[in-house]
Amino acid sequence: MIKVGIIGSTGYAGQELVRILLQHKEVSIVWYGSKSYIDKKYSEVFQNMFQIVEESCFDDNMEELARHVDVIFTATPQGFCASVMTEDILSKVKVIDLSADYRIKDVKTYEEWYGIKHNSPDFLKEAVYGLCEFNREDIKKARLIANPGCYPTCSILSIYPLIKEGIIETDSIIIDAKSGVSGAGRGAKVDNLYCEVNENMKAYGVSTHRHTPEIEEQFSLITLENVTINFTPHLVPMNRGILITAYGKLKKRVSYEEVKEIYDRYYEKEYFVRVLEKGMPPETRWVEGSNFVDVNFVIDNRTNRIIMMGAMDNLVKGAAGQAVQNMNLMFGLPEQEGLKLVPMFP
Amino acid sequence: MIKVGIIGSTGYAGQELVRILLQHKEVSIVWYGSKSYIDKKYSEVFQNMFQIVEESCFDDNMEELARHVDVIFTATPQGFCASVMTEDILSKVKVIDLSADYRIKDVKTYEEWYGIKHNSPDFLKEAVYGLCEFNREDIKKARLIANPGCYPTCSILSIYPLIKEGIIETDSIIIDAKSGVSGAGRGAKVDNLYCEVNENMKAYGVSTHRHTPEIEEQFSLITLENVTINFTPHLVPMNRGILITAYGKLKKRVSYEEVKEIYDRYYEKEYFVRVLEKGMPPETRWVEGSNFVDVNFVIDNRTNRIIMMGAMDNLVKGAAGQAVQNMNLMFGLPEQEGLKLVPMFP
Amino acid sequence: MIKVGIIGSTGYAGQELVRILLQHKEVSIVWYGSKSYIDKKYSEVFQNMFQIVEESCFDDNMEELARHVDVIFTATPQGFCASVMTEDILSKVKVIDLSADYRIKDVKTYEEWYGIKHNSPDFLKEAVYGLCEFNREDIKKARLIANPGCYPTCSILSIYPLIKEGIIETDSIIIDAKSGVSGAGRGAKVDNLYCEVNENMKAYGVSTHRHTPEIEEQFSLITLENVTINFTPHLVPMNRGILITAYGKLKKRVSYEEVKEIYDRYYEKEYFVRVLEKGMPPETRWVEGSNFVDVNFVIDNRTNRIIMMGAMDNLVKGAAGQAVQNMNLMFGLPEQEGLKLVPMFP
Amino acid sequence: MIKVGIIGSTGYAGQELVRILLQHKEVSIVWYGSKSYIDKKYSEVFQNMFQIVEESCFDDNMEELARHVDVIFTATPQGFCASVMTEDILSKVKVIDLSADYRIKDVKTYEEWYGIKHNSPDFLKEAVYGLCEFNREDIKKARLIANPGCYPTCSILSIYPLIKEGIIETDSIIIDAKSGVSGAGRGAKVDNLYCEVNENMKAYGVSTHRHTPEIEEQFSLITLENVTINFTPHLVPMNRGILITAYGKLKKRVSYEEVKEIYDRYYEKEYFVRVLEKGMPPETRWVEGSNFVDVNFVIDNRTNRIIMMGAMDNLVKGAAGQAVQNMNLMFGLPEQEGLKLVPMFP
Repeated sequence: MIKVGIIGSTGYAGQELVRILLQHKEVSIVWYGSKSYIDKKYSEVFQNMFQIVEESCFDDNMEELARHVDVIFTATPQGFCASVMTEDILSKVKVIDLSADYRIKDVKTYEEWYGIKHNSPDFLKEAVYGLCEFNREDIKKARLIANPGCYPTCSILSIYPLIKEGIIETDSIIIDAKSGVSGAGRGAKVDNLYCEVNENMKAYGVSTHRHTPEIEEQFSLITLENVTINFTPHLVPMNRGILITAYGKLKKRVSYEEVKEIYDRYYEKEYFVRVLEKGMPPETRWVEGSNFVDVNFVIDNRTNRIIMMGAMDNLVKGAAGQAVQNMNLMFGLPEQEGLKLVPMFP
Repeated sequence: MIKVGIIGSTGYAGQELVRILLQHKEVSIVWYGSKSYIDKKYSEVFQNMFQIVEESCFDDNMEELARHVDVIFTATPQGFCASVMTEDILSKVKVIDLSADYRIKDVKTYEEWYGIKHNSPDFLKEAVYGLCEFNREDIKKARLIANPGCYPTCSILSIYPLIKEGIIETDSIIIDAKSGVSGAGRGAKVDNLYCEVNENMKAYGVSTHRHTPEIEEQFSLITLENVTINFTPHLVPMNRGILITAYGKLKKRVSYEEVKEIYDRYYEKEYFVRVLEKGMPPETRWVEGSNFVDVNFVIDNRTNRIIMMGAMDNLVKGAAGQAVQNMNLMFGLPEQEGLKLVPMFP
Repeated sequence: MIKVGIIGSTGYAGQELVRILLQHKEVSIVWYGSKSYIDKKYSEVFQNMFQIVEESCFDDNMEELARHVDVIFTATPQGFCASVMTEDILSKVKVIDLSADYRIKDVKTYEEWYGIKHNSPDFLKEAVYGLCEFNREDIKKARLIANPGCYPTCSILSIYPLIKEGIIETDSIIIDAKSGVSGAGRGAKVDNLYCEVNENMKAYGVSTHRHTPEIEEQFSLITLENVTINFTPHLVPMNRGILITAYGKLKKRVSYEEVKEIYDRYYEKEYFVRVLEKGMPPETRWVEGSNFVDVNFVIDNRTNRIIMMGAMDNLVKGAAGQAVQNMNLMFGLPEQEGLKLVPMFP
Repeated sequence: MIKVGIIGSTGYAGQELVRILLQHKEVSIVWYGSKSYIDKKYSEVFQNMFQIVEESCFDDNMEELARHVDVIFTATPQGFCASVMTEDILSKVKVIDLSADYRIKDVKTYEEWYGIKHNSPDFLKEAVYGLCEFNREDIKKARLIANPGCYPTCSILSIYPLIKEGIIETDSIIIDAKSGVSGAGRGAKVDNLYCEVNENMKAYGVSTHRHTPEIEEQFSLITLENVTINFTPHLVPMNRGILITAYGKLKKRVSYEEVKEIYDRYYEKEYFVRVLEKGMPPETRWVEGSNFVDVNFVIDNRTNRIIMMGAMDNLVKGAAGQAVQNMNLMFGLPEQEGLKLVPMFP
């Protein structure tokens, strides 16, 4: 059994990690970390865990935790993991960081968009960007994983094959993203109260959202050019789910079949990426609770653009599920272990 | 492997059966029955099943199905199962009927409340009321299970110990029930459109709901008296979940500890019934996607009444999950096989 | 023009007062009070008021306010109004208090259920319980109005005629109430976050909710007996709306027509109470945004009980709308002035 | 009093017309047309109208209606109005058509995108596109109004000033639109059931939605060029509201102030278009129930694009409210008569 510690287990992503790991055969959670609920029973914070989890919450102490477990998940705000990371820790345990701290390799870009100083840039080079479908081999050997952001995971998987194959103009990419509210975290803010979010739709962080440079960096790695994109996230009155609608200018005329063949070729061996059939739009309801990303596209010959769409559960493939997928790879387990969750509808 | 056929697999309960059985180790679904979607791919009806279920829908033919499978689930409207049931079928397969056809033993009561003729009353005596926590031993030997209604399951499990122990006046019971919209089925009705249900709360079937006599019959079996109750269901703008709030007159003063001891005694060995701690109200969010029923109570000394509460996922313990629990018992499998689903929150 | 000041104008009830008063012909709002947003533009707190309200928020200073306006609405937490009230204030302005401070005449009961000391019990006798349909004549002459609670308004109007007429046993009354989330206020609490409330249903304050003694006192005034009731509120995932489902034991057999005649008789001249026709259940969607209370009932001969139902917008008839109705009466305006709001659906 | 007849009064837009016109001082509704509910009391179809509307529904007969009223609103599916329109009708009454029949001047485009034959193309030239802020003077003189589509209204008002001023490349416009569910109509379809829409987000009609050519035609009229755009609508789990997020390539560098000055100049005299301040994103909650369109923009210097945003209530400014605004203009009433509805929040 792999011994797991979770730092930040009382946020939405942390709790989702617990839900998934409890159903994972090879894992035992031994540490429920929390800054806000120290010594409180975990099942009092999340009553769904009543009679399932008996443990109480421990302080978010990474140093100590490293002596007790095989792998640490940090489901914490940006800055935390970078602040406490040491070679000593990495020599003892594997770390999968669900925050943004090691995602962006360019430290200046990180500091500019996040507005905080990076406290352990030395580990940036070692940290592997944990988008499993991209970096599978590197992940297997990694000690430190930067688990991708929710929007970037959905965006990159939806668009990547067409960039890689040179189908679309890279300076034409516009990503209009929509997310459920769990992505906003469990902090007590007026803006996230039920009555503020329900019966409402809005854009936020327009042209300034921090997932923008993360997506751009990955696209730049693919194209070996500097890619800049427009990225606009929106808040949708639903608990879970991300939908992205992306627009790209076609370099030349392509047929449906040509593009479909590309997506199929890239993803035929990827269990968690489902290339939908013609006329099936990705919808968040069809992936809820699962680790799937559903992708599809429509070519608009009138405007010579292609519309790329992707749907995903932000807490699973967008956070906890992908983190477990990374863990499976790092520990030599079958990649789908504990993750063959059938989407729950309705 | 147990070969399973589902009649009515394209309703919400049917689809939930598929979701649960796909994650059940000892089962293979070989027949996806449907009246409305014959020959259509199941994953086109429910896109969550894309690349998971490859089969298409078959006609809802019970006779033929009986030759191919070990157990049939009928997730059909009332009247269907009673109309097609034969000794020949039962001699070949076990049947778990999710409809109301065999729940009420008194055929006159059934015909009065449901307004239809019962076409196979001869099987009423044989059919076992599949409330597993009640009738476990009979279920193990049964050929035909009447899977309980959603409201009755939650109501009975929440109230039963106090009736059985003679704590409350049986003629004082009032059940005020609240349900998510999936309980209303997948038929295209104006009343169930998004804009009609969203931002709305209403009672329906006041004093005429068909689950009333089902609950009364079970309570009468316990007390050996004729019990009549008030039962008022309400429609709540959410997908899943049933909450019941029940009121009973106390026969005499009791303490919190005395009542808690009763609930604990009745349910300490029941994995799927969680008696919550003092101050934890049952809430539907904490059981969503799982087979749990959460129960709790509050004694109101001012009025000498006790308020009994229960929360449950109407599609799981209220339908498909309990059906699988019955199947496990009938086939000698561990009762929790495939049902240790951790509630999904949020 | 009546000059109006609102203390607590940045809560949900306060903002609803603003919405209604802006459409009231005889009124001018001159003071937007707020504890949390002093000097901030009101339209920055509530962007719906952009280009409609130009004023900024003032401190919640009742003494000063009394010198500037004709009437003060206090939409504040319990305790505030009782703490600042003086004879001097009342000699200058009329006060309509939307909090609980002057609703309960028995100061011991208030202090017991609210857990705070009452700081101006001397005004309790003078304050008129502002349920307009009850106390119209007293309201016209009042200086100080205790605007009723949301649950009590809906409960009393739904049940009152049958108590007054001696149709039901007064010790048998059970009120199962359901409310939208705006009733919980605009404070930043984890419990009221979107993801905590959405897709959930729960009871709260079981047997301890503070609206219980308010309802009991009013019922006791009607019957001249001590009435105790069971009152259980529930939180429903919707913005607005209260639905109450109440149960009472019938003293003797009554017909539908007899009861309907009673309701009609009591409410035929009441514009804001709509006695629905047979078979029309009260639903919150049909009163949203309006000052109506819709009531109806079902007699259950099997159990000899009557089920009384009422639906209302908690922010209008349950708070701001009724406050304006009181103001109209106090200032000799037509009672419906500014309140003939057609319910908004969907 | 202007006598009004409504054909299609039992759809969501028709009912919203009723709600608005009931609060309009100069109007009397004398005809509640309906195909589905002939002879049924209007208040039985929409219970919010109980004791407010006493009339029953009439057949949708335009010829007869023309003899009884001053103005007819047709809130009907495409094809209806074009099929029944005659010179005789227009010689007797003014007609405001909420359907698409007279919006697109090019009959071939209409027939291609809508897939039906246009039965009265002769009136296309006469019909005025009823976007009041554009065509005010023509509307005043019109007999026949083509009330704009919901998406086009929001899209055009959000983007138009920048096209007119030549700020953005017209072949670069991408409109990503999001709508509440009332836009899908009140027909009984599985796709619009509560459980299918709730907790879901999807795109639909990708590159084929019929509002595309309507927007393009208006943009072409402005620029005197053929404009083609990308338009992608999405369905959002909420009752009301449209949000559009539009992207355009800047022809040259512009400052925030320059663009703000343009919007202000275009809309300073337009009561119903609110140009928000910097940092205030348009959100649907802030316009609900009102006739406002809130617009704003963000310049993204990194990509040299501008993001234009607009929020609106699809049933008000997107349908019934704009229709009434048109009526006011046609009858020489103040344009805002009956339309100064304060947005209802929450």
